[in-house]
Amino acid sequence: MKIALGQINPIVGDLKYNSAKIIDLIEEARHEKADLVVFPELCVTGYPPEDLVLKPKFIAENLAAVERIVKASKNIAVYLGFVNLAKDHLYNAGAFIVDGKVKEVYHKMNLPNYAVFDEKRYFKEGEKGSVVNYKGTKIGLGICEDVWVEHGPYQAEVKSGARLILNINASPYHIGKVKEREAMLKARAKQNKAYFVYVNLVGGQDELIFDGGSMVIDPKGNLIAACGQYREELLFVDLEKDQLADWRWLDEPAEVYQALVLCVKDYVVKNGFNDVLIGVSGGIDSALTLAVAVDALGQERVHAVFMPSQYSAEQSFRDAKQVAENLGVEFAVIPINDLFTRYLETLTPHFKGKPANTAEENLQARIRGSCLMALSNKFGWLVLSTGNKSELSTGYCTLYGDMVGGFGVLKDVPKTLVYRLAVWRNVKKSVIPESIIKRPPTAELKPDQTDQDVLPPYALLDPIMRAYVEENKSIREIIESGYEAKTVEKIAAMIDNSEYKRRQAPPGPRISARAFGKDWRLPITNRFKE
Amino acid sequence: MKIALGQINPIVGDLKYNSAKIIDLIEEARHEKADLVVFPELCVTGYPPEDLVLKPKFIAENLAAVERIVKASKNIAVYLGFVNLAKDHLYNAGAFIVDGKVKEVYHKMNLPNYAVFDEKRYFKEGEKGSVVNYKGTKIGLGICEDVWVEHGPYQAEVKSGARLILNINASPYHIGKVKEREAMLKARAKQNKAYFVYVNLVGGQDELIFDGGSMVIDPKGNLIAACGQYREELLFVDLEKDQLADWRWLDEPAEVYQALVLCVKDYVVKNGFNDVLIGVSGGIDSALTLAVAVDALGQERVHAVFMPSQYSAEQSFRDAKQVAENLGVEFAVIPINDLFTRYLETLTPHFKGKPANTAEENLQARIRGSCLMALSNKFGWLVLSTGNKSELSTGYCTLYGDMVGGFGVLKDVPKTLVYRLAVWRNVKKSVIPESIIKRPPTAELKPDQTDQDVLPPYALLDPIMRAYVEENKSIREIIESGYEAKTVEKIAAMIDNSEYKRRQAPPGPRISARAFGKDWRLPITNRFKE
Repeated sequence: MKIALGQINPIVGDLKYNSAKIIDLIEEARHEKADLVVFPELCVTGYPPEDLVLKPKFIAENLAAVERIVKASKNIAVYLGFVNLAKDHLYNAGAFIVDGKVKEVYHKMNLPNYAVFDEKRYFKEGEKGSVVNYKGTKIGLGICEDVWVEHGPYQAEVKSGARLILNINASPYHIGKVKEREAMLKARAKQNKAYFVYVNLVGGQDELIFDGGSMVIDPKGNLIAACGQYREELLFVDLEKDQLADWRWLDEPAEVYQALVLCVKDYVVKNGFNDVLIGVSGGIDSALTLAVAVDALGQERVHAVFMPSQYSAEQSFRDAKQVAENLGVEFAVIPINDLFTRYLETLTPHFKGKPANTAEENLQARIRGSCLMALSNKFGWLVLSTGNKSELSTGYCTLYGDMVGGFGVLKDVPKTLVYRLAVWRNVKKSVIPESIIKRPPTAELKPDQTDQDVLPPYALLDPIMRAYVEENKSIREIIESGYEAKTVEKIAAMIDNSEYKRRQAPPGPRISARAFGKDWRLPITNRFKE
Repeated sequence: MKIALGQINPIVGDLKYNSAKIIDLIEEARHEKADLVVFPELCVTGYPPEDLVLKPKFIAENLAAVERIVKASKNIAVYLGFVNLAKDHLYNAGAFIVDGKVKEVYHKMNLPNYAVFDEKRYFKEGEKGSVVNYKGTKIGLGICEDVWVEHGPYQAEVKSGARLILNINASPYHIGKVKEREAMLKARAKQNKAYFVYVNLVGGQDELIFDGGSMVIDPKGNLIAACGQYREELLFVDLEKDQLADWRWLDEPAEVYQALVLCVKDYVVKNGFNDVLIGVSGGIDSALTLAVAVDALGQERVHAVFMPSQYSAEQSFRDAKQVAENLGVEFAVIPINDLFTRYLETLTPHFKGKPANTAEENLQARIRGSCLMALSNKFGWLVLSTGNKSELSTGYCTLYGDMVGGFGVLKDVPKTLVYRLAVWRNVKKSVIPESIIKRPPTAELKPDQTDQDVLPPYALLDPIMRAYVEENKSIREIIESGYEAKTVEKIAAMIDNSEYKRRQAPPGPRISARAFGKDWRLPITNRFKE
């Protein structure tokens, strides 16, 4: 059997665009004499459609889109995801279409309702697996989570004679996820002595990244076909003939970098923006953000502005300018000293003689934020913010200051990984100057400041933050794993106390198993101390 | 049987505070010779504990708190809510304690997972109702949603002989909710010929308001006892003897106003703030916000600052000052003209001759935001933002400008209701000058501006916004209900296009059936058009 894997990048809510894209690929698959073409979970609506699903018109248009697709499926079979409405209930569903007719509708049985998922908010659970007979092959149907659970529908389907399991997905990326999928699918294929065809979405949707990497595993547990990561693809595989030699998924820095590039590109493009604006400081975060933006959009669509104060080192200017030059990006300089002085003159009488504190430091960040937003408003550019996860977790960032922006590119990237990504990006062409990578990080909001005045070294902070945030470890467990109690307690307290800031942060790409987004739902008003 | 209703205001995550409060009231109930004291759903942890529930230490401390409560329950019975851990699953549970021993643990069977609720993210559903025999009375147990569903556990419990149903709640307020509860409970009591004891939380928790209003209904459907709204109370009721004559719940303006006062107070106090700061413009929103803050915290803890620009009318100054005076609040004036001029000088070379647009308007709002935050940073005051729901829904507000703040007091209050609340607040003492109520609303960001330059009249905007947002009506349905197509389409598009702004807005009290918070989960990247 010749199967086409339709790894597509739909747009949430654009039912016409999505169905037209699907129909085009059905056409192509038919032309290539495929027997069956498989598209991802909820590819008709885009994933996750969230509360759009509560709008009856949205459901109706999604059903109308499916009808168009059904009509376009002459002389071929198609399996794809949509929202089904049956007896007043909504289902996360898969339609198996043969020669212009819906042969079977499968309802997802295992609805994830943890981490970033809220599927029980919208859908009712299906009650049984589905096996269809097509061209002499019994085919079992499933959707995403169904294949992750030990006793998924595939078990009963295989017992009913299925030797090919189709599993369609909207599986969000986190670091290493594609290898987890591959290992799981190989185990399933071997246990069940069946082919597993796994088709994933690709594309960015707000904070979520769908990384593609669709694949086919044979009953012996061999990977016999694989789509690329982070790109659309229509891949053909002949189950009996094909055999993939030596396939390698991307390794960590490349994997993360390309995830960021895809997510930034899709956020900008799908939201109808042309250009982006980045405030560059001469530091590593804004340098990396600039590189990601250029790789996502091209240099013409990226604008950099450097906003020095009296505390900005000359080196910061040179480095910021150098990055912009290396990347071929427009570079503007807007000094903020005068504005800062004027603010102090205006506010000092109201400060009642209180000593300098974060008020003065944050003012500088907020002047920069206001300048960025003024340019954004004037030219319609989207501001990309540059803060990293180490900062956002500990609250080492200024609300309405450096947190300003429509999309936070490094929001889920810890500082130590920022460095690794910068070094990796420099391999093919050196764009981020060594001096940026080597200088101690500083916010330059007062004289001789460095991040480590307030924060533990990032080499300590990052693993502790990851254990606490991403692995949900307790303070005690983290201390027992070998960190100093005082440091762990300090970091945990900083994380706990910064929730209010995170609530007003822009969204940004999720690359970890737990980002500050849909999978982090802590109350602001919260007196629990670990 | 003499029952005490413990309508308490716990603090999320403060297990010691909550259990100590519960133990104190058990003491008091015993002293008053009550047979049974009933506390709300999850009162040990506070509600909603959200992802704190995923922390094993949090669960363990909650169980330890229950143990302390059990020990303190000699010679009395107690029914209260906690998180139970049984066979590796978590349950939203109720413990029925008699004389220092847990007699029964009930697991909530109906877990709400819609609107603001995510209970299926955390809890497993219970499988059966519970009836306990206490002092010769069979008592059926339930939790919140259990009593709202047609075939809740109370049915089987009544069949098993229960003549008294205890239902414990964390039922979030929206306008008119207490009357909905009363009507539902009266119907349940009559159908089932049983007493229904309904005990609710009280207090603010981030965006949610728990309004109290606990009550007891007799088997004939009479309200025989009721706690006040918006306050803690330990109310005693003798089921056989008491009969409540002529009870009246608060009506709409009072009900909403007091909900806002409670929610602001709890956000400020539970988060450890003393003072709040409000930017006042001479308009109705900031005047009402100031009144709410003073009623919540007292005049000494509230600070007002007026920040005029060249576009501010003299009347605005007089009105702003008058409100502050009427409320006895400290009033500062920080003119922003110089700063605005300096920004324009700084930015004009970068504007490349483009005509004035929202960039210049928003700059003024952002200067004000920066000044507010500078005072906040200097003195540790929490900034209360003043934008209303009509603005936030249509995006008629400036990110990092007037949207600045830790808590958005009127976030869920449409403009027309803002006026009604102001008029109502003036009844007991006139604090908001007539001229504020009568002048056409304006942002004063350019000459002779009024809100209606951009927005339809609020008398049109608000009902259309409510239909679209709160009632989830389609554009077509709204037009068919009698509004002009062009206006409805314009408003719906404004709402759809402003999602990115709302994502970075501070939290604020939810008073409607659908606020821009937990119960509004629309993608930002979204091409669906109604």
